[in-house]
Amino acid sequence: MADKQSPEYLENLRHSTAHLLAAAVMKLWPHTHRTIGPAIENGFYFDFDFGDTKISEDELSKIEETMREILKDWKGFERHELTADAAKKEYPDNEYKHELIDEFSSDGQTLTFYKSGDYWDLCRGGHVDHPENALKHFKLLSVAGAYWRGDEKNKMLTRIYGTVFPTKVELEDHLARLEAARERDHKKLGKELDLFVFSEIVGKGLPLWTPKGATIRREIERFIVDLELKRGYLHVYTPDIANLALYEKSGHYPYYKESMYAPIQIDDEQYMLRPMTCPHHFELYLSHSHSYKELPMRIAELAKLYRYEQSGELAGLLRVRSFCLADAHIIATAEQAAAEVKGALELIQEIAGIFGLKPGEHYRYRLSLGDRADEKKYFKDDAQWDHAEGVLRSVLASQDVPFFEASAEAAFYGPKIDIQMKNVNGKEDTAFTVQYDFVMPKRFKLSYINEQGESEEPIVIHRSSVGAIERVMAFLIEHYAGKFPVWLSPTQVKILPITDRALEYAQTIANELRDSSVRVEIDNRSETLGAKIRDAQLEQVPYMIVLGDREVEEQAISVRMRDNAKYSGTSLDEFKNYLTEKITQKSLQL
Amino acid sequence: MADKQSPEYLENLRHSTAHLLAAAVMKLWPHTHRTIGPAIENGFYFDFDFGDTKISEDELSKIEETMREILKDWKGFERHELTADAAKKEYPDNEYKHELIDEFSSDGQTLTFYKSGDYWDLCRGGHVDHPENALKHFKLLSVAGAYWRGDEKNKMLTRIYGTVFPTKVELEDHLARLEAARERDHKKLGKELDLFVFSEIVGKGLPLWTPKGATIRREIERFIVDLELKRGYLHVYTPDIANLALYEKSGHYPYYKESMYAPIQIDDEQYMLRPMTCPHHFELYLSHSHSYKELPMRIAELAKLYRYEQSGELAGLLRVRSFCLADAHIIATAEQAAAEVKGALELIQEIAGIFGLKPGEHYRYRLSLGDRADEKKYFKDDAQWDHAEGVLRSVLASQDVPFFEASAEAAFYGPKIDIQMKNVNGKEDTAFTVQYDFVMPKRFKLSYINEQGESEEPIVIHRSSVGAIERVMAFLIEHYAGKFPVWLSPTQVKILPITDRALEYAQTIANELRDSSVRVEIDNRSETLGAKIRDAQLEQVPYMIVLGDREVEEQAISVRMRDNAKYSGTSLDEFKNYLTEKITQKSLQL
Repeated sequence: MADKQSPEYLENLRHSTAHLLAAAVMKLWPHTHRTIGPAIENGFYFDFDFGDTKISEDELSKIEETMREILKDWKGFERHELTADAAKKEYPDNEYKHELIDEFSSDGQTLTFYKSGDYWDLCRGGHVDHPENALKHFKLLSVAGAYWRGDEKNKMLTRIYGTVFPTKVELEDHLARLEAARERDHKKLGKELDLFVFSEIVGKGLPLWTPKGATIRREIERFIVDLELKRGYLHVYTPDIANLALYEKSGHYPYYKESMYAPIQIDDEQYMLRPMTCPHHFELYLSHSHSYKELPMRIAELAKLYRYEQSGELAGLLRVRSFCLADAHIIATAEQAAAEVKGALELIQEIAGIFGLKPGEHYRYRLSLGDRADEKKYFKDDAQWDHAEGVLRSVLASQDVPFFEASAEAAFYGPKIDIQMKNVNGKEDTAFTVQYDFVMPKRFKLSYINEQGESEEPIVIHRSSVGAIERVMAFLIEHYAGKFPVWLSPTQVKILPITDRALEYAQTIANELRDSSVRVEIDNRSETLGAKIRDAQLEQVPYMIVLGDREVEEQAISVRMRDNAKYSGTSLDEFKNYLTEKITQKSLQL
Repeated sequence: MADKQSPEYLENLRHSTAHLLAAAVMKLWPHTHRTIGPAIENGFYFDFDFGDTKISEDELSKIEETMREILKDWKGFERHELTADAAKKEYPDNEYKHELIDEFSSDGQTLTFYKSGDYWDLCRGGHVDHPENALKHFKLLSVAGAYWRGDEKNKMLTRIYGTVFPTKVELEDHLARLEAARERDHKKLGKELDLFVFSEIVGKGLPLWTPKGATIRREIERFIVDLELKRGYLHVYTPDIANLALYEKSGHYPYYKESMYAPIQIDDEQYMLRPMTCPHHFELYLSHSHSYKELPMRIAELAKLYRYEQSGELAGLLRVRSFCLADAHIIATAEQAAAEVKGALELIQEIAGIFGLKPGEHYRYRLSLGDRADEKKYFKDDAQWDHAEGVLRSVLASQDVPFFEASAEAAFYGPKIDIQMKNVNGKEDTAFTVQYDFVMPKRFKLSYINEQGESEEPIVIHRSSVGAIERVMAFLIEHYAGKFPVWLSPTQVKILPITDRALEYAQTIANELRDSSVRVEIDNRSETLGAKIRDAQLEQVPYMIVLGDREVEEQAISVRMRDNAKYSGTSLDEFKNYLTEKITQKSLQL
């Protein structure tokens, strides 16, 4: 019997259910053109050309019902062999299938079809036995548009997503996780908490940060800059545009051209929105000569970068067309490299720790290596590659953080450590990197005068401490489910006077807290206390101060916390100390 | 006898000396083509086409010598009348003069020439009597390139600048002031103090801020943002690029097109580097509906803006192609306008005061009015203009700051208050503005729900609190002559150990000061104390801590201040308190 948790079984299960979905769709809308229906992570999809018929998520339950009916007769998948001509006849006027058939049969091979009940489809195979029992625990999830073969130039098809599991419990668990993730989705919460918006006329992939979102961003940015300054980074400002010649010098143009925007003509020169900070920092370094005593020189910047993304790929704050990277380039001697990489990882861990992210649980490291044989993709210098990879590996081994190695994932100019963050859906992505570079110093002729008074070439470490601020924001919104710790909360305290008699006292308290740099609001609407509390909780304000006649009389306060945490003190002074300490400490607890 | 201080006399004096300059040049290089030589503020210039001869500032003393020789025979200016043909014969092959002669004689007028000694020139007149005595106190200053008639498409001529005064004392005073200004020039000090650099390959008019310059900028930016937040401004972040359609909606395109850069093609859309923040803030406002209770809404941003400048106009940090403006748009009811303009002026005065800039001495206000008759330049709505100008005038009158009125200097959409800053040369320029706008709310259909539940149109106040950070920096470098107050100093304390025996103690002190967020450096070079002090003073570091054997033994410190100010304490704790108070208070005194 098959191991029902094996990746192979699960893939067959998902793909089999995609057949079932297509069978139901063809029964309900016989004029539909089927295309393909693969298994994907956690489920499957099937792409259809419905012609003029518009299919929305309202139709999903009807399709599911039909799938259940059909499923009763699905005892197994029968394999059939057909010639290309015979296969084409099965799909009259279906140009998508004909295109596939031509491709699959180009070497004269016969084609396979798989049949269950009275439905069959062109298919390479990979199904489960006893579908009538195995496919029971499925659910259709959503409808989306998708270009045929993922190419914008092709026709837009209708894609139906679904999922399926071996047992009911597993399906229900998965759906509950999906629902929880949906609740935490940064686009949804960003709107509900009024943190950022998009404007059609401003443009795609260009978020506008509201006052509340901007408060969080400013706190994060200042925190990063201050911490980096403390660690000896030298923060600079360099221009967001530069002459095309600069990127020709660095090699980004034309090698990185696809990710760059079109040039801006200024007089007789061409300027580019910068996709990277490195050449700017190198030019700053080159404005003087440098001694070994100045190394390592850690040039840092909160740098606005511009990289092309297709409009279909844009997604909230996760994929944008302009982002702000906490970037740095450490110019160092080869001997200093290990200590500098170690320092960079320590800084990353410190920042992640303050956000409440734990190594192993929320992130791990990937050592991305070069391929010595691939001279096209990797700069040829085996000794340098060996040395640099050795440095990174030994630093990682000395850290108390899980890591794994990946071959042929390095940058052109050297190996790197990728920081792999896992989001609330459990999906792992490279958030940012620490890279060892022995190529750019040559291109830019970077040098320093060593102890012997001779000119020597340094190495460069490209690193971020936290990644792009936009992605950090998206990640943290989902990680905290909108319940930001107090130091990041746009409104830290909301004062709720029960009646107008408490208004003056509310103002006194607000002023006193503001003098201590606390972000305070007073809810002076003519609403019931219940409504005021509910609204403050919807806004995820961490602390509420409720003021009734008794509080005014006793010059006391009554504090209510988000999520029913308790604070029983009634003295404003004590609370102010409590609060400012939570803020200063960047405490994760209220 | 003429009043030798009257503007008219001074202008005649300057223009007469320009004749003298040209006479000397023609004597020295007879094949030169003369063009024009007007009086300007504080002096004069004359533009020449020297042909293949290259003239540098090395030639100025020789020219001055010839001027003095010629001057002996200059008893007066004789007026002569010539026809156009006769005039042209005086300037064989001089196309510049011929062009002028054609213009001046186009209505058949005869032309005037003025003659002194054996030199004459085409001239409208305006000279002094007794030149041989009156012109004695002159000085040639510099040589520069200048396009004929200021047009880039024309030939580049050689311009010689000079100055002249009625008395020797006045000339010497002026030269001393020029020399002092040269010493304070922000480009010169910016280089000497290593605050910013330019890179040919990065591009023209795009400064790169070094770690030291960036420190000052960061302090200024945080100071402004924090102060604005305290005053109820809502800081946001909006994109630096936007779809061309946004600027068509605002009217900047095509009306402001000449100052905008060329579009960037992204897929099938055109994006612009933004020249203004207003449309971005309006779009943010439009993302929700708003109640009168939210007004006035003060939307602020440290906004990066891009405006085209000809490459010849670029000058250090004063004229750049990208700058960062402390910008805001106050959306308010018409009734709130006066209070909001008043608040904006108070904020401006508060910030200027902290920088040590005094109203009347360093800046004054200009009320720039519209011209009701000019419907092309000013939006037609007489009642609104009357109202808005009245509001601004009454606010200005209530302020204890000098102001004057200027007609036809308003923006298209309403009157404005210009903040006129006077630089160290005494030159007054509009640094930034507070504008009343009753047009953009209509274009963007801005609205709010009033107390009666009806939709109403707000007004907008465009304002800056300090202007562009780049210009602030240029201004402050010159204002302080590089001696920044301690809160802005890149290095606040430099520790100078006399021998290596004091190094460990120096490190302890540095750590302790750094824990209090003081920016400290240790000069651990093997140099004499004298050399270390001299270098720290050249860097304009406000405080030096000198550590010898005695200080180590007694665990004391010895403080030396910039500019020989005195601090006699020897306790580190006391000094730390003294220093951190100076920093927190943003004190102008050490």
